Amino acid sequence: METGRLETFADGVFAIAATLLIIGVTVPDRSTALGHAVLHAWPEYAAYAVSFVTIGIMWLNHHLCLRQIGAVDRTFMVLNLFLMMCIAFVPFPTKLVALHLRDDGERAAALTYGVTLTLTAVCFAAFWFYAARNNRLIAEDADPMVIKGISRSYAPGAPIYGVATLVALWEANVAVALFAAIALFYVVESSFFARARPKRG
Amino acid sequence: METGRLETFADGVFAIAATLLIIGVTVPDRSTALGHAVLHAWPEYAAYAVSFVTIGIMWLNHHLCLRQIGAVDRTFMVLNLFLMMCIAFVPFPTKLVALHLRDDGERAAALTYGVTLTLTAVCFAAFWFYAARNNRLIAEDADPMVIKGISRSYAPGAPIYGVATLVALWEANVAVALFAAIALFYVVESSFFARARPKRG
Amino acid sequence: METGRLETFADGVFAIAATLLIIGVTVPDRSTALGHAVLHAWPEYAAYAVSFVTIGIMWLNHHLCLRQIGAVDRTFMVLNLFLMMCIAFVPFPTKLVALHLRDDGERAAALTYGVTLTLTAVCFAAFWFYAARNNRLIAEDADPMVIKGISRSYAPGAPIYGVATLVALWEANVAVALFAAIALFYVVESSFFARARPKRG
Amino acid sequence: METGRLETFADGVFAIAATLLIIGVTVPDRSTALGHAVLHAWPEYAAYAVSFVTIGIMWLNHHLCLRQIGAVDRTFMVLNLFLMMCIAFVPFPTKLVALHLRDDGERAAALTYGVTLTLTAVCFAAFWFYAARNNRLIAEDADPMVIKGISRSYAPGAPIYGVATLVALWEANVAVALFAAIALFYVVESSFFARARPKRG
Repeated sequence: METGRLETFADGVFAIAATLLIIGVTVPDRSTALGHAVLHAWPEYAAYAVSFVTIGIMWLNHHLCLRQIGAVDRTFMVLNLFLMMCIAFVPFPTKLVALHLRDDGERAAALTYGVTLTLTAVCFAAFWFYAARNNRLIAEDADPMVIKGISRSYAPGAPIYGVATLVALWEANVAVALFAAIALFYVVESSFFARARPKRG
Repeated sequence: METGRLETFADGVFAIAATLLIIGVTVPDRSTALGHAVLHAWPEYAAYAVSFVTIGIMWLNHHLCLRQIGAVDRTFMVLNLFLMMCIAFVPFPTKLVALHLRDDGERAAALTYGVTLTLTAVCFAAFWFYAARNNRLIAEDADPMVIKGISRSYAPGAPIYGVATLVALWEANVAVALFAAIALFYVVESSFFARARPKRG
Repeated sequence: METGRLETFADGVFAIAATLLIIGVTVPDRSTALGHAVLHAWPEYAAYAVSFVTIGIMWLNHHLCLRQIGAVDRTFMVLNLFLMMCIAFVPFPTKLVALHLRDDGERAAALTYGVTLTLTAVCFAAFWFYAARNNRLIAEDADPMVIKGISRSYAPGAPIYGVATLVALWEANVAVALFAAIALFYVVESSFFARARPKRG
Repeated sequence: METGRLETFADGVFAIAATLLIIGVTVPDRSTALGHAVLHAWPEYAAYAVSFVTIGIMWLNHHLCLRQIGAVDRTFMVLNLFLMMCIAFVPFPTKLVALHLRDDGERAAALTYGVTLTLTAVCFAAFWFYAARNNRLIAEDADPMVIKGISRSYAPGAPIYGVATLVALWEANVAVALFAAIALFYVVESSFFARARPKRG
């Protein structure tokens, strides 16, 4: 099993999970005051955007990882499968948050979102550190500085999501704002690796 | 990150967003006068066709752009991610228009459709002009005439959709007709670049 | 635009349209007599199978065509886009037939299915004959016998579906049986081209 | 038809079928006691996980098979199409089990799940043994030990699922536990082939 085949499946899951998010956005069927209903549903669009960007950034990072990897073994493939299982699950808590951001269910929705993203970050860390530990699956021509940079960057992912999830126990609104902020942060942060010089295609 | 990986994700999002449009077409479950119900639902099929063609043309143009690009950097990837987020959103306003073309919600539906397509055109322009400005990411062997042609062609996209969206404030029916006409126009217009001589595969 | 990019989009639409068919299969939520409900819903599975095989065979034929083609032009890409629009539409009439096979809506459902498949066959013929006429887009090393064989095989597609659709006006049951028989026939028939010797990958 | 094209379609179906499973997970819309509702719905997540892993493992095995295959003929492609039709069907019985794990419909749901997986295993065996019998489609440089290993491993698949399905006639709970155990077993078991040395990508 070369990295190429693993990428095909992963690319599919990333693209489908992100695009399926739109199915979770409710289409109002009452026609009176439709404009108001569409505007009032802003949490649906915000949840869509945050989850789309979160999945998109993970897709970028997934490829950044695979570019450093020269070999794939069974354990790595199973770890990747568990990571994909988490990614594909994201539309569910996204819809929960979108539906319940302004009612009594907000805490439960935020907790579910947080637990899902924390588990996803744990799987991502397992996926990467399994490959990187002792350079187990790292390509021979990979740049050690990039490997260290990725490791330094991914280590805090799960704790950050874990803390935001705990915050949801007290203030669900704040936790949801944190999830959005983390997505934004990763958009900026991912630049520290890919920043470099443009690569010829 | 080479253009190849970016294309894989983008191809997935384009194909999935277009194919998901069919989920928005309501299947009538009453059996009496089903024929009438199926015919009466023509706005559903029209909305499906216009959005499918719109996404399809954007897919063609996306590839036309990437063929000119030799290098990819982080900012470009993030711009592409935002473009994908817009494309994947199209099934939502499509369904809104299909449901409300003949009731009081038509204006709100047409405005939502227009705002989505205008934002998509803005993201597409940002995606292209970021790459094309000072030939930042343009391949060395790209034809300057093609680059100029693309730039000349994409510049009016956002204003055109913006004007059609403003029209929806007064006459929603006319705006919807404009969205269909723009899709048709782009089918014809995209030929001015791809027209040329057939390319060997 | 090389054939490669066109295939990526087409492969995506074929695979997604076929896989989305399962969303149309209703999951009964009442728990009493669930076994009976599951068995009673056999038209849902039959419709799923017929449409899945129909889309699958068209995918095989689409690739058989593209293997003969060395060049792609704008008109061909637009014809392909219309073909994809028909393929992605198939889940809608499939669900209609599955729901109404045994009630008053059967004729309307069968007609809708037939019209969709007839249009799809027309688009497929346009797609192929545009490329094949005067060898417009045919690869130089393509086997003229294969080209002729494909042309002879695709010419009757639209008329066959058209006749089955007309039959639905009188006997919807017979028309539905014909749609299933045509799918089966194409499974066997497609062998006349691919039969040959196995090809090395 | 080279194995490459067959893989593209298959990869698409595997990734989409797995990712579509999330659509089957019900999002509660009542806001009071949402936390309880989310926790109470654990069979939905368990069913999601078992089916996701089952489809994922089949994807791994599908590629393990194709790596041994040097040639593709029409019959093989049709067998692959039937296999894909089974894989894409899995979200339906998954949802049935998730909904009815704790009510009177459990037996019917478990039977439907079991029949689907048994049929899938039969199609998988047909797919593999058609290629492997007398090395019909096996690549010339394939390792005979790997071929034998795959054959030894796939032979019991259908009987195992068949037995678990029969168990559902008496104890649906036990059958469902067996389906989960089989998925887990295949995660471990698939290692016996891919285990070996890591392969360079």
